[in-house]
Amino acid sequence: MMKVQPASQNQIRQWRKLLRKKYRDAEGLFLVSGWNAVKEFLNGARNQVKEFIVTKEHLDKLPELSADDQWPVFTVTATDFKRLSDEQHPQGIALTARIQAYAIDSEMPQENTLIYLDRVNDPGNLGTIVRSAVWFGLTTLLLSPESADPFQPKAVRASAGAIGRVKIYRGVDSASLKQLMRESGYSGVATVVEGGMTDRELRRYSGKKTILVLGSEAAGLSPELLNICPIKISIPKPGYGESLNLSTAAAILFYLLRSG
Amino acid sequence: MMKVQPASQNQIRQWRKLLRKKYRDAEGLFLVSGWNAVKEFLNGARNQVKEFIVTKEHLDKLPELSADDQWPVFTVTATDFKRLSDEQHPQGIALTARIQAYAIDSEMPQENTLIYLDRVNDPGNLGTIVRSAVWFGLTTLLLSPESADPFQPKAVRASAGAIGRVKIYRGVDSASLKQLMRESGYSGVATVVEGGMTDRELRRYSGKKTILVLGSEAAGLSPELLNICPIKISIPKPGYGESLNLSTAAAILFYLLRSG
Repeated sequence: MMKVQPASQNQIRQWRKLLRKKYRDAEGLFLVSGWNAVKEFLNGARNQVKEFIVTKEHLDKLPELSADDQWPVFTVTATDFKRLSDEQHPQGIALTARIQAYAIDSEMPQENTLIYLDRVNDPGNLGTIVRSAVWFGLTTLLLSPESADPFQPKAVRASAGAIGRVKIYRGVDSASLKQLMRESGYSGVATVVEGGMTDRELRRYSGKKTILVLGSEAAGLSPELLNICPIKISIPKPGYGESLNLSTAAAILFYLLRSG
Repeated sequence: MMKVQPASQNQIRQWRKLLRKKYRDAEGLFLVSGWNAVKEFLNGARNQVKEFIVTKEHLDKLPELSADDQWPVFTVTATDFKRLSDEQHPQGIALTARIQAYAIDSEMPQENTLIYLDRVNDPGNLGTIVRSAVWFGLTTLLLSPESADPFQPKAVRASAGAIGRVKIYRGVDSASLKQLMRESGYSGVATVVEGGMTDRELRRYSGKKTILVLGSEAAGLSPELLNICPIKISIPKPGYGESLNLSTAAAILFYLLRSG
């Protein structure tokens, strides 16, 4: 039997604070909201879960999640649930989870293929990139300073719960990236809108120690980043356009690295 | 010299109505808003433009668009401009353009590769799909009934102006699609989350008469659609997840069809 209890107004206020980065970082907690995101998050990150927050209508559905009996379940009214979401019509189920974020100087990444995102400040794009990365089995992401927070509600939602499966390094500047490349033998592959090598070249890096470097849509990659990446790669454009949406470009490149 | 004049409150009211589908369809007009979208729209669809709407600050930038002298330019205040947008901080430049929409019984599609979207009702996804399609040179889209309107502001914005380069057929139901396949010799390729043939198979259809059929994220493809598509295709999943975001899955498939 799960321990179901009504939430106090004080608890609701504490959870509501998690909509803001400052409080998420202070508490080391974030919200995962919506049925599919909660379900997928549980598939990948059960041990990060702290507690459930549900409206009465969603209480009956909890057993479908094969939720652990040890987790506390708090019930709230639909009106209070809305205060815990940035959505107009939130589904009445959420959980709080412990933020797993890493710093490059305390624990080095271990995977062969890393993804570095330079100032990606659209949370929807960031979350969608997380979702695609996890789909293709790429689970280490390095974020530059001035990135969107991957633990904010919109990013978590766009990740469809995949945020629980990635190891995220925050605040990785170009100097740290350069050092990582040098010390751990990674090759940097920078993505550029045009003039890079053909995308097919990317397949040659499949399985090798590679950092795929993607830039913000508006600004592209900084000159320092272009400098430290020996390889430049572009997605072919048989048609027209200034650029692809960043998260769609990322997905094509992940595909090429992992299945192409 | 372009004819610059202040907009009347009546004109502003008429433009504001274009935020709603009913009025867009009645007037045969839609709004393209934001510097990049306007610029890209002009690159591809100059002849669809009716007029410009700008705030004073953006008036000076008009010559950069090499705008046609014949087009009327209306100035509005920043406050009035906000009324013409669903964005919180719109850029003060927009144009109105004539809707180019087609019906399958009056004009048959001519391209080798067509894209059919089944009940894609997220306008952001729909616009991003348009943007990716145009990038890969796929310029005919067939939309099922109950699709989002590609001419709504959010979809136009997500298309980054590429909406001007596509031929859109609206309200194409599965019976019409079946007829098109039979009469014009197209093969239907349905995308399914799992269990389809490998994505590499898709390359075999590159250049052949093919309709790529993509479904809504929530519902997947309807049984009728799966029935009329002899080929099923899936994107490999070396990692985890319930599904990819629809617009990222679409981009990978467009890439395979056109460059893979």
